[in-house]
Order: sequence, then structure tokens, then C-alpha cells
Amino acid sequence: MLEKYRERAESVNFLNIYKARKAVYQSLKKTHLIHYPGLSQMTGAEIYIKHENHNPTGSFKIRGAVNFMASLPDDVREKGVIVATRGNHGLATAWAARNEGIFCNVVVPINNNPEINSVIKGLGAELMQHGKDFYETQVYCEELADEMGYYYIEQGNEPGVLNGLGTMGLEIFEDLPEVDTIIVPVGGGGGCASLIRVAQAINPGVNIIGVVAEKAPSLKLSLEKGELVTTEAAETFADGLAARSIFQIPYLIIKDTISEVVAVTEKELIQGVLLSLTQTHNLAEGAGASGIACALKIKEKLAGRKVVIIMTGANLDRKHLLLALNE
Amino acid sequence: MLEKYRERAESVNFLNIYKARKAVYQSLKKTHLIHYPGLSQMTGAEIYIKHENHNPTGSFKIRGAVNFMASLPDDVREKGVIVATRGNHGLATAWAARNEGIFCNVVVPINNNPEINSVIKGLGAELMQHGKDFYETQVYCEELADEMGYYYIEQGNEPGVLNGLGTMGLEIFEDLPEVDTIIVPVGGGGGCASLIRVAQAINPGVNIIGVVAEKAPSLKLSLEKGELVTTEAAETFADGLAARSIFQIPYLIIKDTISEVVAVTEKELIQGVLLSLTQTHNLAEGAGASGIACALKIKEKLAGRKVVIIMTGANLDRKHLLLALNE
Repeated sequence: MLEKYRERAESVNFLNIYKARKAVYQSLKKTHLIHYPGLSQMTGAEIYIKHENHNPTGSFKIRGAVNFMASLPDDVREKGVIVATRGNHGLATAWAARNEGIFCNVVVPINNNPEINSVIKGLGAELMQHGKDFYETQVYCEELADEMGYYYIEQGNEPGVLNGLGTMGLEIFEDLPEVDTIIVPVGGGGGCASLIRVAQAINPGVNIIGVVAEKAPSLKLSLEKGELVTTEAAETFADGLAARSIFQIPYLIIKDTISEVVAVTEKELIQGVLLSLTQTHNLAEGAGASGIACALKIKEKLAGRKVVIIMTGANLDRKHLLLALNE
Repeated sequence: MLEKYRERAESVNFLNIYKARKAVYQSLKKTHLIHYPGLSQMTGAEIYIKHENHNPTGSFKIRGAVNFMASLPDDVREKGVIVATRGNHGLATAWAARNEGIFCNVVVPINNNPEINSVIKGLGAELMQHGKDFYETQVYCEELADEMGYYYIEQGNEPGVLNGLGTMGLEIFEDLPEVDTIIVPVGGGGGCASLIRVAQAINPGVNIIGVVAEKAPSLKLSLEKGELVTTEAAETFADGLAARSIFQIPYLIIKDTISEVVAVTEKELIQGVLLSLTQTHNLAEGAGASGIACALKIKEKLAGRKVVIIMTGANLDRKHLLLALNE
């Protein structure tokens, strides 16, 4: 089952991330890595935040989408692409497709956040609402791709996407080569896998700590069991962590190389959102704030270390923002 | 009275902003200019936000502080600097001073926001609390500068600071040379003045619209009267706009060149904060959100235009954030 992904996993590598670097900076700027004295004091570590929430469309996913679009063959460019999404992947793909003049279909579940839907449409993509849960949405998306000839972008298993995401890791080492610990949120695993490829090439001694939601522990269970585990549900409010399973390629890359996986509760995520607002003055979505939540949870281990926390995204809805402020 | 500032106002110019450009990028990254379909739809204009809130210390002021520190003579570097502040100017100066290893004193009023004080200390500056209002703080700051030999940085009248701020304007034209309108918040006037210098050099036809708080209308009154007006009070929650008077050098630069000044109410500022959260997923302070408030207020005039709104800063306290969310 995993065998067929092995070759593609190998094409997520340092050379291809360097190629992505060139493509990505045609359209995107580097994001800031900022030191926060307050968070450092709270944890006893030297805390830096990598502000992927500052990217256009509000998340790190745009790096993958931009690199993917830059390397599309002509026949795909003409036919167009399709994605299934609840948010950031769709926003990023719509942005990158418009940037290259490629026709983009975005399929979301019927009950999807209307704010997100409206931005996706605003970016010029064709929005379709289909399926009562994300699984049904994906099935419909695959069917439509077959029928219409659109290229289906299965984000976490697409080397072009993963190599694009790797530029985030390059920037961390460019700005803070002496980093010794990086905390990265894990949903589908793409960001974590690409980061690991970069760390292995530049400094394999760096600790890579993955954060999952306690309610979406696929990576944690998979590592414990030694095989890819799909959970029954993944009902965390942190959309970016809400994967029932990590993707196959990231699993192959992560399984023998990640230092540690930490599961955080819904309450800890909400507290992370609040700390992001008060300590960094940034709006972070649940996944985006999960690194801060993790750092507080394991602060004894982090004491004295130089820690980079990746704030993956900003797209929090008003309801959860209010919940955080009333904490 | 204004005569003695005229020569220094001339040294805020395009060549010196180009020199600042080189110094600023030794330490800072460019900020993103992002198009927002939702805000565009609401206003009928093509709306882009210049995300100065993404800078380290959460505001555009750091550009001025970094450039100022880079060009200090040796004797000042050895003695150290001093500033009076309620927030962003102090944060920016403390950051830039630490970056260059220069001793930095920051004087704040006694009742200043404790969150801000704590970050200033965390950045390694010597924090002093003195004066029951900002005027008293400034007087004390000047006395201490005389007595101890520290260099007193009067931000809005310091050409090194203003030229540094000008790099923000350069980035806008680098990313969107076809911009036809720029909306810039005005407190002391430094950001607006430096922007005007850039616009005059690149495209004097661009409309520069200044936003003031209705409760801090110094620039508006000064233009109407044809001389610098200091108001009795400036009691807006938007700290970045809360100046009883704009500085002399910015006044000299702005008075014959600005296209329009728009005054916004406290309620409109709070609505701007809410729109920043929901439409852009960014936390903006009052001044940072004032450009959005202004764009909505004058949307009839903006229809069809390419508009850049400068989001100057992120440092909003929890109380006003809650106020906005409960709007």
C-alpha cells in the first residue's frame, strides 16, 4: 500500500526544495521570524515565531500551491485543477491558480464556513458545495476530476506541493541557523515532512516536535503502531489539525525521523489562541496557535533551548476568537 | 518657529530614503501587500493592505528606529539614547537599540499599558515610569537627556527616523506601481510625510489620504487654519493617532501636498478593528485599523480606484479587542 508512494517521497528532497525556492519567490515574500521576550519568559526557552500566518491567504499552504502551479505541464494548465478543502488548501490553490491564470475548481462540504467560501469565490475560483462531510466532498472531487479532466491536487501526496512548503524550513535556517528545536503543527503532515527534509540536510541534530490535536491523533497512533492509522473522527475546532489520517508521503518521511509528537487538548488550543493575541498581537487559528500551546505544555523539556514555533495560519472564525478572549 | 525645521525637512528626501533602504534591509524584511476581495467588494475599490503590523514589535515604526540607529555617530552609540513613548515608538527603539548593542532608556507615563511596558523591558531597554500624562513624560525625558548626556530621539522631527519610514512607501510602489490612492493613518505625521516624499518622486499624481481620529484632529485643523494647531486633548483609544499636534517637520512636508484628510470616530475605529479581524484575519490596533474605517467612510469617492491602505500596527490591548468583537 505504501510502496507506491516511496518513489514520490524520494522526490521530496533538498534539491527540489531549492528549485521550489526559486519558483516561490517569484510570487511570495519571506515571512518574519520574530523573537518574543514574553513567551520566552513563560517557557524558560528562547522563543521565536515563524509567522506563516502573514502569508497571502493567511497560511503556509500558499508556498506549496505556488510551487505546484509553477511547474504544471501545458495540458494541465489548459484543463484546470480541482481541490477538496475546508479552508486553507482551497484558499492557497485559488490564489496561486489566479496568479498563473489557471482555471481552479474548489469543492467544499455543504456546511463549510461561509466566510471562507466567500473569500475563495473572491479569488476567482469556481466554488462547489458538495458532501455532508469532508470524505464525501473528496469522493465527489475525484469523480469530477475523472469526468471533466481536471487535475486533482491531493495536497499531502503531491511532491510539487511538499517541496514548495519546504521553503518555510529554509527560511528558518537562513534566519536562525543555531535553532535547536522546531515545533510544527501536524494535520495531513505536509508541512512537517518538508521541514524534516530541510533539517536533515542542514542540521539533522535539530529536534522536530510535531503537535497534533488530542482529538485528531493519527500521527501519534501511527508511530505507536508502526503503521498508518486512520481515526474514526477528527473533531477538533482546529481545522488545520483535523485530519483523520496523515497522508502517505508525509508518513513515509516522518515516521523514522521525527523527535517527538505532542497531543494538545481543545482547551490548550484555545489558550494558545489567546496567548497569540496577547503576547504576539497576531490572530492565529487553532492549528496556528498549537505550537504555542505545545511549548507551554512541555516547557520543562524546552528550558534553555532555542525554539522556533511555526504559526501556520491565521484563519480563525469569530466564534472561536470570542471563546479565546473569554478564557 | 517653523523656520528652524526647514533645513531638516529638506533632508527627508528620496536619496536619503534610498540610503535608508540599504540600512533597513540589513535587519528587516519587506512586508506583504495583500489584495482583499472582501474589502474590495464592500467598498467598490480594489483594496490592498500594506501589512506594517507584521513587522517585529508590531508596527511600521521599526523602520525609522533601525535606520536611525544605523547612522549614529560613535559618541552617541557609547552614551546611549532616550525616548518618551506610550508604545510603538518605544518598542521599535528598544528593538533597534538592542540590535546594535546601544543602551536605550524608555520613559513612559505612570499609567501606561503594563503589557507594553513588559515587552519594552523584555527587549532589554531601561524602562522608567514618569509623569501623569505624556506631556510630563516628555519633559522628564528631555531633562534626563540633558543631565545624563543621552541622545533624545524626538521621533517625528528626526530625519534619520523619517527617511527610514520612507522605505514603507518604496515597497508599496515596488509591489503595485499602478496604485492611485494611498490611505495612511496620521498621528505625529512621520509616516505620512515620508510616504509623500516617495510619492512625489515616483508618481506625484497619487492621492494621499490622511486619516486622523475625530478626537485628535491636529492635522485637519492645522490645514484649515494654515498653521500648526495643538489641540487641548487627543483622547482617542487609538494610541497611534493620539497626538495633540503633528510634528513640525511632517507639517512642513504635508501641508501643501496631501490630497485630503478624513476624520474617523471612535466607533468607526472599533468597526475597523472588527473588519480587520473578520476580513483580513489580522489583529490591528486602532490606528492600524483606521485606514479600513476611512475607506468605508469615503467609499463613494474610492469606487473603481486601486487603493493601498496602510495597516500601521498590531498592538491592540485585550479590552478594545473585546469591544470590537462585541460590536
